[in-house]
Amino acid sequence: MFAGSIASMTVLGAPDIVVLTLSEFADQAHRICRAGELPLIVDADHGYGNALNVMRTVEALENAGVAALTIEDTELPPAYDSSKARRLIPVAEGIGKMRAALEARRDPGLVIMGRTSAAAITGIDEAIVRARAYQEVGVDAIFLAGMKTRDELAAIAAEIDIPIMLGGASAELSDRAFLAAHGVRIALQGHLPFSAGVGAVYETLKALRDGTQPADISHAGSRELMARVLRQDDYGRWTDDYLGDDGATTG
Amino acid sequence: MFAGSIASMTVLGAPDIVVLTLSEFADQAHRICRAGELPLIVDADHGYGNALNVMRTVEALENAGVAALTIEDTELPPAYDSSKARRLIPVAEGIGKMRAALEARRDPGLVIMGRTSAAAITGIDEAIVRARAYQEVGVDAIFLAGMKTRDELAAIAAEIDIPIMLGGASAELSDRAFLAAHGVRIALQGHLPFSAGVGAVYETLKALRDGTQPADISHAGSRELMARVLRQDDYGRWTDDYLGDDGATTG
Amino acid sequence: MFAGSIASMTVLGAPDIVVLTLSEFADQAHRICRAGELPLIVDADHGYGNALNVMRTVEALENAGVAALTIEDTELPPAYDSSKARRLIPVAEGIGKMRAALEARRDPGLVIMGRTSAAAITGIDEAIVRARAYQEVGVDAIFLAGMKTRDELAAIAAEIDIPIMLGGASAELSDRAFLAAHGVRIALQGHLPFSAGVGAVYETLKALRDGTQPADISHAGSRELMARVLRQDDYGRWTDDYLGDDGATTG
Amino acid sequence: MFAGSIASMTVLGAPDIVVLTLSEFADQAHRICRAGELPLIVDADHGYGNALNVMRTVEALENAGVAALTIEDTELPPAYDSSKARRLIPVAEGIGKMRAALEARRDPGLVIMGRTSAAAITGIDEAIVRARAYQEVGVDAIFLAGMKTRDELAAIAAEIDIPIMLGGASAELSDRAFLAAHGVRIALQGHLPFSAGVGAVYETLKALRDGTQPADISHAGSRELMARVLRQDDYGRWTDDYLGDDGATTG
Repeated sequence: MFAGSIASMTVLGAPDIVVLTLSEFADQAHRICRAGELPLIVDADHGYGNALNVMRTVEALENAGVAALTIEDTELPPAYDSSKARRLIPVAEGIGKMRAALEARRDPGLVIMGRTSAAAITGIDEAIVRARAYQEVGVDAIFLAGMKTRDELAAIAAEIDIPIMLGGASAELSDRAFLAAHGVRIALQGHLPFSAGVGAVYETLKALRDGTQPADISHAGSRELMARVLRQDDYGRWTDDYLGDDGATTG
Repeated sequence: MFAGSIASMTVLGAPDIVVLTLSEFADQAHRICRAGELPLIVDADHGYGNALNVMRTVEALENAGVAALTIEDTELPPAYDSSKARRLIPVAEGIGKMRAALEARRDPGLVIMGRTSAAAITGIDEAIVRARAYQEVGVDAIFLAGMKTRDELAAIAAEIDIPIMLGGASAELSDRAFLAAHGVRIALQGHLPFSAGVGAVYETLKALRDGTQPADISHAGSRELMARVLRQDDYGRWTDDYLGDDGATTG
Repeated sequence: MFAGSIASMTVLGAPDIVVLTLSEFADQAHRICRAGELPLIVDADHGYGNALNVMRTVEALENAGVAALTIEDTELPPAYDSSKARRLIPVAEGIGKMRAALEARRDPGLVIMGRTSAAAITGIDEAIVRARAYQEVGVDAIFLAGMKTRDELAAIAAEIDIPIMLGGASAELSDRAFLAAHGVRIALQGHLPFSAGVGAVYETLKALRDGTQPADISHAGSRELMARVLRQDDYGRWTDDYLGDDGATTG
Repeated sequence: MFAGSIASMTVLGAPDIVVLTLSEFADQAHRICRAGELPLIVDADHGYGNALNVMRTVEALENAGVAALTIEDTELPPAYDSSKARRLIPVAEGIGKMRAALEARRDPGLVIMGRTSAAAITGIDEAIVRARAYQEVGVDAIFLAGMKTRDELAAIAAEIDIPIMLGGASAELSDRAFLAAHGVRIALQGHLPFSAGVGAVYETLKALRDGTQPADISHAGSRELMARVLRQDDYGRWTDDYLGDDGATTG
């Protein structure tokens, strides 16, 4: 899962306020997809503009190689004079965006999820209306952000048939059996890996600056891990096969 | 300091075999420059081709905002049938590259360093020839890679006047007083911060996968550190000043 | 002058409906700046989002090398259910954007223009209010789009001191002496060069497809023009100087 | 067909000397593919480096959406002190590159062509050796550049079974029936469309600068042509369907 907030931090070193461009987001998603074989879910925020921008977003992310993407119905980036409170776009506008996303998809295997924070912003009734509306126009799954209680989740789950993804949920919603019994197929775990990485880089730079010799610094990034991450075996084999006499003459 | 190897790892997840493109390298350098105010030195490998490509490299990196860059005289990417042994390009070709780099510079404040691994590949005499030749055509500093002994460093230092940067040096060359007395102004400390970051991300993902609750994971990336890295104060102030009534009406 | 509409056509082959991203626009602007020495004015539309996005826009375009940019106060991209009629953002929001643009500028030589289509959308009074407001917060010039009459231009010009740029003006506003006497310093001439280029490519491809031999096709792109556009003299000289024995040994 | 030389001119305004990066080339190829439905053949020069760079080239171009690509066995970019004369890389190295290209292909529908200028550089015997060698390792077609005579073409065609593409051929090789009878499936027609476009832009700018009123300038880019190129019907329909009440409520 590649979140919009993490993209903003990674690419720009900026907080999660949607100053990243679609191009930057799609490029970073492509980097991730290219580096391994795991399917990638991305949070495409509001689709970077109106419904026509949503179409470009789907095109760009499908081309980047993602397996699934979410489009949300929050007003983004924050409108003038509203920056302290999140607002939803009208449901009809949200429906237009979901339909545009579905039309822009070329690969039927690309999963398109509708995302709504309605439960946290305007309440559970609105969340149900939106989840049903997005299901009706054909999204493959619903991403419910900021859910607080078991009752709320149960209420929404009773009204829809498509899979649910949870993100930013409260501690009350951490029991996997309960989640599984109420349509949840993916429950996100927050952004700890990113801050752990930043912290480790910082501590290592600080130690070096304070005069610690490199040989005296121990950390979790072993030589074996690095070799695996960098696919050194693949590159070594390709070098042998295509850059030397042996490979060529036995081709 | 942003090394070519780290660029390859960061952008592609690939080992240091020069499959990264100049565009990707310059984009990543720009990301770093944009995220803070520290001056950045970058290792531009061989300048991504011949002397004309060196000119484009200097243009792209100057535009990316780097403070200094190094151009080396190793044959890169590895030539066919030579991949196991590094080779130097002829010194006349190296001189052409250094002169091209200097001509392509528009901002006289941009530092252009000549880099040579001659001491490690063909010996100290060749290293001296090259360091002197590059100094003669006007490079601002010399980057000596893979130096092994104090005697070698002293021998080169005696022949040139411009500052020296060391990278990949042996343990014998870790005494700062000795280095400072022999023209060394920058001694690189390796790539530990990067592998520390990779290791921390890996360990955190692994813990989450093994079922550890996010609340039970502790790591070095504090909320305060993240806020500083993301410049949340700046963005908060800009939001107040330019996205709300107050800021606008008192403008 | 590089218009947003032309950028969209050039990069995407799409009409002028703001589906281009800031990254794509800035990259294209950089390509233009890199290819010659003429100063470039760019139309940065609404700054690709809210006032914080305007800050990124200024940063990206300054880095791309533009000499001047315009930020407009039209609601863009078209909002849901409003796509047939253009609307203005509130003047306070426009002021916030202009102030954000000015703060984001690092090079004091970068010209920041406020653009308004108010005369065409809501009338001359609103246009005066906005032109004065943007002048007051410090923009360097005003870009008035879609002006229709001499009286209107005179009315606005009487209220401001900063230079005026006109675009999409009516035939009534084509007399250069009148324009010069009323504060206009730049009058755009539309997008004919772009459509002429597209037409020429199309006609040539069509002729080739219809069986005309290449030798029988005549057109305006002479060998001399191409050599000048491609700076072949520069590249030839650099090749001689940096890629051959002569250049290197006399360095 | 998108040639390397045209890419360099379009993106950089530079002559055909391989200062363009793979990233820039692939981005431009993607722009072309995205703008229409015609399959695109691209000239990927030497694959932007050694055989491992060829693998990245194939990955990048396949992702850009091209239908076919060519990899050539000329030494590129021009080596030091050889810039005036083109040279071939050893055939074993060329074979390594072709094999690497084939391994890097993920979509079996992507056509990989081997390109050789051997006939023009070292003679017809060498051209036959190379065409056969590349066919043997599995390339889908051969791109013969700079062919001069019917006899030469016939000699090569007699030795291989895969389709032939011709480029930069002499006038002697313009008879379509002869070409078709000797394995040629595609005969390129040069780069006239590009220079025609540049010429038309130049003449139009010049006329405007000389004071011609826009209304008095006639050219080949009609309103109908522009609407077709920009797919205005598609965008208009999408706007109606996804940005207005009607579309949403009938969804």
